[in-house]
Amino acid sequence: MSADTSFDPRSGATVASISHTSDTELDELVVRAAAAADVLAGASPAERQTWIRAGADALEANREELAGVADRETALGSSRLDGEVMRTAGQLRFYAEVAVEGTYLRAVLDPATPTSSFLARTNIPLGPVAVFGASNFPFAFSTFGNDTASALAAACPVVVKAHPAHPMTSQRTFEVVHTAMVGAGAPESVAALVFGYEAGAALVKHPLISAVAFTGSQAGGMSLWKLANERDVVIPVYAEMGTVNPVVVTPAAGADIASIARGFVSSFTLGSGQFCTKPGLILAPRGVNATRIIADALEDASPQPVLLTKGIANAVTAGVAELQEAGATLIAETSSTGAGWSSPATLLAASVDLLHVGSRVLNECFGPVAVVVEYDHVDDALKGVDSLQGALAASIIAADDDPDAPRVLKHLERKVGRVIVNDWPTGVAYTWAQEHGGPWPATSNPTTTSVGASALDRFVRPIAYQGLPESMLPAPLRADNPWGIPRRVGGRLETGERP
Amino acid sequence: MSADTSFDPRSGATVASISHTSDTELDELVVRAAAAADVLAGASPAERQTWIRAGADALEANREELAGVADRETALGSSRLDGEVMRTAGQLRFYAEVAVEGTYLRAVLDPATPTSSFLARTNIPLGPVAVFGASNFPFAFSTFGNDTASALAAACPVVVKAHPAHPMTSQRTFEVVHTAMVGAGAPESVAALVFGYEAGAALVKHPLISAVAFTGSQAGGMSLWKLANERDVVIPVYAEMGTVNPVVVTPAAGADIASIARGFVSSFTLGSGQFCTKPGLILAPRGVNATRIIADALEDASPQPVLLTKGIANAVTAGVAELQEAGATLIAETSSTGAGWSSPATLLAASVDLLHVGSRVLNECFGPVAVVVEYDHVDDALKGVDSLQGALAASIIAADDDPDAPRVLKHLERKVGRVIVNDWPTGVAYTWAQEHGGPWPATSNPTTTSVGASALDRFVRPIAYQGLPESMLPAPLRADNPWGIPRRVGGRLETGERP
Repeated sequence: MSADTSFDPRSGATVASISHTSDTELDELVVRAAAAADVLAGASPAERQTWIRAGADALEANREELAGVADRETALGSSRLDGEVMRTAGQLRFYAEVAVEGTYLRAVLDPATPTSSFLARTNIPLGPVAVFGASNFPFAFSTFGNDTASALAAACPVVVKAHPAHPMTSQRTFEVVHTAMVGAGAPESVAALVFGYEAGAALVKHPLISAVAFTGSQAGGMSLWKLANERDVVIPVYAEMGTVNPVVVTPAAGADIASIARGFVSSFTLGSGQFCTKPGLILAPRGVNATRIIADALEDASPQPVLLTKGIANAVTAGVAELQEAGATLIAETSSTGAGWSSPATLLAASVDLLHVGSRVLNECFGPVAVVVEYDHVDDALKGVDSLQGALAASIIAADDDPDAPRVLKHLERKVGRVIVNDWPTGVAYTWAQEHGGPWPATSNPTTTSVGASALDRFVRPIAYQGLPESMLPAPLRADNPWGIPRRVGGRLETGERP
Repeated sequence: MSADTSFDPRSGATVASISHTSDTELDELVVRAAAAADVLAGASPAERQTWIRAGADALEANREELAGVADRETALGSSRLDGEVMRTAGQLRFYAEVAVEGTYLRAVLDPATPTSSFLARTNIPLGPVAVFGASNFPFAFSTFGNDTASALAAACPVVVKAHPAHPMTSQRTFEVVHTAMVGAGAPESVAALVFGYEAGAALVKHPLISAVAFTGSQAGGMSLWKLANERDVVIPVYAEMGTVNPVVVTPAAGADIASIARGFVSSFTLGSGQFCTKPGLILAPRGVNATRIIADALEDASPQPVLLTKGIANAVTAGVAELQEAGATLIAETSSTGAGWSSPATLLAASVDLLHVGSRVLNECFGPVAVVVEYDHVDDALKGVDSLQGALAASIIAADDDPDAPRVLKHLERKVGRVIVNDWPTGVAYTWAQEHGGPWPATSNPTTTSVGASALDRFVRPIAYQGLPESMLPAPLRADNPWGIPRRVGGRLETGERP
């Protein structure tokens, strides 16, 4: 049987090897997850919160070891990874808290009228969810990352397909969190971990899997989406694939190009450019020497990026070559260590007309690569924006009371899930208002988010109960509102009060 | 150029013929709808309510004429159709009111903290929506039915593909409502109407269409869903296809079989059995003579059904034959007029084991056909339920404090979007709590509804604004909450207050 083998990206040396999950093992895990689904659905959000908090505490307690393992498999640096473990624990607690708050259940009660019977509606969990973690956040978007945490909070058991680039990190994270959750009372099959491409495909096709959550490349996300669409019972696939996130510098903001250049370089090379929110494209007004100044800023910063996998490193090299063939000009390239999966950071320049092709190629460069476009008039920049694929985020760098900013905003709104003014898109806080999603193909479903309170909404579906006696109603719809959740009763929204 | 030609189902005589929309006309209409999308998005929900109310008033004012035209094309009866026009007006007003209430915007404000900038989130309209109406509700689920009304309320212009079975009803309804809406200030392209299969396919493929809503057969819904999935930019398809809605009579309720039989017959023959919520299957305990008593009730009622189209009539005949070939037994058949698209009402009996095949065949019988299954033990009934396709609704006929009802509920919950106790599934009120949807293939998206307040959710997507100055924020997120909508501010839900 084959195995997932990880490598130290700094040297290329082998780190760990974990056998792939067999078909029989996989089937058993999913069958058990389906049985656990009833236990999770029957537990209150507060009970699930107890389990999830125990998992979060265990993550924190083991963060040094976990960050160490992950650094060997990802080269993302111990301090960044230590912070990421803490963030992942925070995410777990946040989603559990969102579940306890209860708005995600969208409970509604329509009292009986002379012509209609009592009708009440609540969300119920979909059932076992398959989660495919990302390479670039081995904790925050991996084994117990945003997707898993929000699915568990929404009462869905999870079967995680480990990312092949960090199998040992996945395994240890799973052991630490799973043991703690079960110790706190969660059913054994609240979560499971599987390895291997075949196991991943079998998961998506398994009749007892109810939804798929994925973070990664367009090629990966699309293939899972297609697989799910071929099922007898088609299930939702929430694929967060990202694309090229544009930055538009307005003419009025052009004067600040030196500081903009430093911020842009720092943002597009962060984590070796391996962020789905990386600003891969900057549109700046002609006449402020933007291309030269950004190139200088890149040379000043002179990062020495190391990429997560050989595959990513090769795709970056190929993408940069393809961009040049398409008509982009190489402007600056930093030196690289030459060892392992190291790569230069690269800046290219292109014309607005190139964007509708270039943005698709650039999308494949999941690394420290960015393109500068100098525009003559804001209308040209907007034409460029209109030609881009849907994206997760976009930034506007604008002056106070900038006359062009509202128009730029209008065009960017159609393309992305988040617009930022005078800051960079790379940070994604897990909060009530967050939206980490965007029009196709940034995500497979533009009405959802994979980060923030609404992430739970992906794993529930509404059901209405008509004429049910009080004794048969689930807790969210009982007259005494035992969980104290917000509800709409007789058309009026009531904020609820925790017991 | 070909045309949609309608027939009087009672006689088969031609009623009307309307030419198909050409490719050029269609493209122009969609381009204009896209321009109108900006106007709708810029209008407040209260402004849109003014337009929509004008449309509803016009419907009511013209209800006699409209019901008359529809009766000629559908044979559903003037009084039912008169009521349906009134209901359709009520739906339009309801969705507009839901928009004004504003919860559907899901506005959230996260104030800035020392480590994070101001982040706010609201829903924005998706853009032009293609609506495919149903044959069986020529008003309530057609031109200005639930899908159109909820899309308009959510600020999306609509291009309706007229149902070929009632082109004249579609045309007149469109003229009446559109004229009134434009008269009240709506942009000319707030809605458009197109005719013909090719126009429908071109609509789904048009790059400026953002979503598709459909009510009808599985074959029709699936083909639009597949078409949308082949687009360069894939868009959501909300197809409400319905399947077989089961009724489970518990052992304790079996004693009431005589009155249950009358109710069941009345429900499955209502509207000649052409309801997507028709109870097509009843599971009753053996030993109370259910099959015979339901057959007697059918013979007592002796309806003389007339179907909407020749295609539906033929499919019913073929489906009944196929069910018999699969092992079902013909129990009772009423007489039919023999003219036009008339059909007998038909009752068949089958074993639990037949259900996993039979329910799929029965699904094609969109007419007055039902199957009785007598079960030995509740476990057998539940096994039968587990083998069914996902459905819109299910009924449990139970006694007070019925010991089996909770278990039956558990199994039905996994299969449907609405569970009814001691009533029939055929009525679907448009209210806050309503859920008219269900697991695949009852609908293409189990997390949505096509009736009730949440119907608007299908036509919006979230967007987050980070660090935007107050002057650039849209109304739902402004500090003074000008629309008085419910919002979450700093994690706390505020119910809002209309100005």
